[in-house]
Amino acid sequence: MKVLVIGAAGMVGRKLVERLARDGALAGRKIAAMTAVDIVTPTPPAAPFPIATDACDIASLYVPRQLAASRPDVVFLLASVVSGEAEADFDKGYGINLDGTRMILDALRREQALSGGDYKPRVVFTSSIAVFGAPFPETIGDEFFTTPLTSYGTQKAICELLLSDYSRRGFLDGIAIRLPTICVRPGKPNKAASGFFSNIIREPLAGLPAVLPVDDDVRHHHASPRAAVGFLLHAASLDLAQLGARRALTMPGVSVTVAEQIEALRRVAGEKAVALIKREPDETIRRIVAGWPRQFDAKRAEALGFRAETDFDAIIRAHIEDEHV
Amino acid sequence: MKVLVIGAAGMVGRKLVERLARDGALAGRKIAAMTAVDIVTPTPPAAPFPIATDACDIASLYVPRQLAASRPDVVFLLASVVSGEAEADFDKGYGINLDGTRMILDALRREQALSGGDYKPRVVFTSSIAVFGAPFPETIGDEFFTTPLTSYGTQKAICELLLSDYSRRGFLDGIAIRLPTICVRPGKPNKAASGFFSNIIREPLAGLPAVLPVDDDVRHHHASPRAAVGFLLHAASLDLAQLGARRALTMPGVSVTVAEQIEALRRVAGEKAVALIKREPDETIRRIVAGWPRQFDAKRAEALGFRAETDFDAIIRAHIEDEHV
Repeated sequence: MKVLVIGAAGMVGRKLVERLARDGALAGRKIAAMTAVDIVTPTPPAAPFPIATDACDIASLYVPRQLAASRPDVVFLLASVVSGEAEADFDKGYGINLDGTRMILDALRREQALSGGDYKPRVVFTSSIAVFGAPFPETIGDEFFTTPLTSYGTQKAICELLLSDYSRRGFLDGIAIRLPTICVRPGKPNKAASGFFSNIIREPLAGLPAVLPVDDDVRHHHASPRAAVGFLLHAASLDLAQLGARRALTMPGVSVTVAEQIEALRRVAGEKAVALIKREPDETIRRIVAGWPRQFDAKRAEALGFRAETDFDAIIRAHIEDEHV
Repeated sequence: MKVLVIGAAGMVGRKLVERLARDGALAGRKIAAMTAVDIVTPTPPAAPFPIATDACDIASLYVPRQLAASRPDVVFLLASVVSGEAEADFDKGYGINLDGTRMILDALRREQALSGGDYKPRVVFTSSIAVFGAPFPETIGDEFFTTPLTSYGTQKAICELLLSDYSRRGFLDGIAIRLPTICVRPGKPNKAASGFFSNIIREPLAGLPAVLPVDDDVRHHHASPRAAVGFLLHAASLDLAQLGARRALTMPGVSVTVAEQIEALRRVAGEKAVALIKREPDETIRRIVAGWPRQFDAKRAEALGFRAETDFDAIIRAHIEDEHV
């Protein structure tokens, strides 16, 4: 089978490619070849199959057709302008997150038509809990409506609708998975408003100080990078007929307060690690985070076999196993 | 104030233009000029203000900018490929219902930028209850999610998201109103699967026979053409700050069974009219209609002052007053 990963240089994309290289197989079939692209050329890992890499912009008119031309069996569609950039640059956000994604779907549809209907790829699209916008209930269920409060969330919600319609029409077999906040993000602290959720774990584990800008009772929904890769693999393997026409799924995760995160850190790494967290309240971040979802009831995804960690200790242990080697 | 009506030759568009011509005003302001366009040239009624008419395709690349160039204060965006055609012709449906609508919004956004931010039009967009797809609860509330089962419904749901985001960003001041099934539709019986809801009232009132293809216990959500025009005028007048970022509203209507429709006909027009309804069950139509919403709780719209008829007798009387003159 042939696999195409679009957005392979991002944090999740890189881990997905590494995992596929390690497994050598996907959905019970041997991988014969992979194409891995991003806006910068991804660095391919050693793999038992050839990996072609390239840098390209999916919003460029000729790129989607080129990517679809090899008729990949599975397409992981992870490429996205992030939330902050989509808000700052309206045209770029819509250009890549909506038009680029739609052109990929249309290019796959075109290959299906050219194939006489034989070709029908699996498309795994990473959506986001940003499709939800406040006010919402304490726990957001599978039938709650999408009222995004960012252009990024709007673009993701639109792509979910497109993916469902293209699947219903039989052009492709798509699934959109809404990722929780990924925690613990590896790498350096960044400026994302959600960065502190990872910083207060990752930095103390490395013996470094970390800043906590919000109150201890802030609750949020997390999954590890490892769980995110697991969602993608499961989404590529699942019989999607079970989903009917509703192709967007909120992924399970661990809903914890910051206080519970810190308690988990104490259990895993001791008092010395916890002592490295400095409380420096930041009004801007507090206000942004107050508008975020706190908890999901991901019943549908769980019934379909999607599995996240079940407690925050496991998220920390996954980080140590995957990053402290 | 300047008004632009896009889709002015359709059933609702025509009635809207006639009503505006009669009123001479909108949202408490005198209308200075109107532009009324459709894919065919609309026939303008006599009016106390000039009405420019034209035939154009909103999916044509240069048309949206031309329409926006006069900077209308209120834009009624009714133009749409209907459900059956959007399903039969994928490219045309997406081309007009998604790309055409989006290009209108982008052209208005461009005028705003050119105006230095002074220009900010009210945009009233007609969406549809086709944004909902089975399975759904017996009564669909304001927070139920949009899972369309047609490309038409998908396109409407996407435009709702765009309209909310463009409003949130401050490019325009938009509202999407989801119209119930319009009943009693004037004119001749057509082939729409929903046609019988109107046929069984309109035809007997004119002394003609009508076919009922479904069971008497089929329930559906209706509003008169007069109520639909009322929704549009109210949407153009309302302070939309009250809506926050959630710019799509399900309109109120009258939820009745076919049996209740027939009882209302009996009360208004007598046994002789009812005797003209012939029961000829049609499996295809029965199956299509079984997947349609039956009832809505349009709390939000009602709280904002949107008013439909309160019983089906009133819908029949509105039809007689408006069409039997």
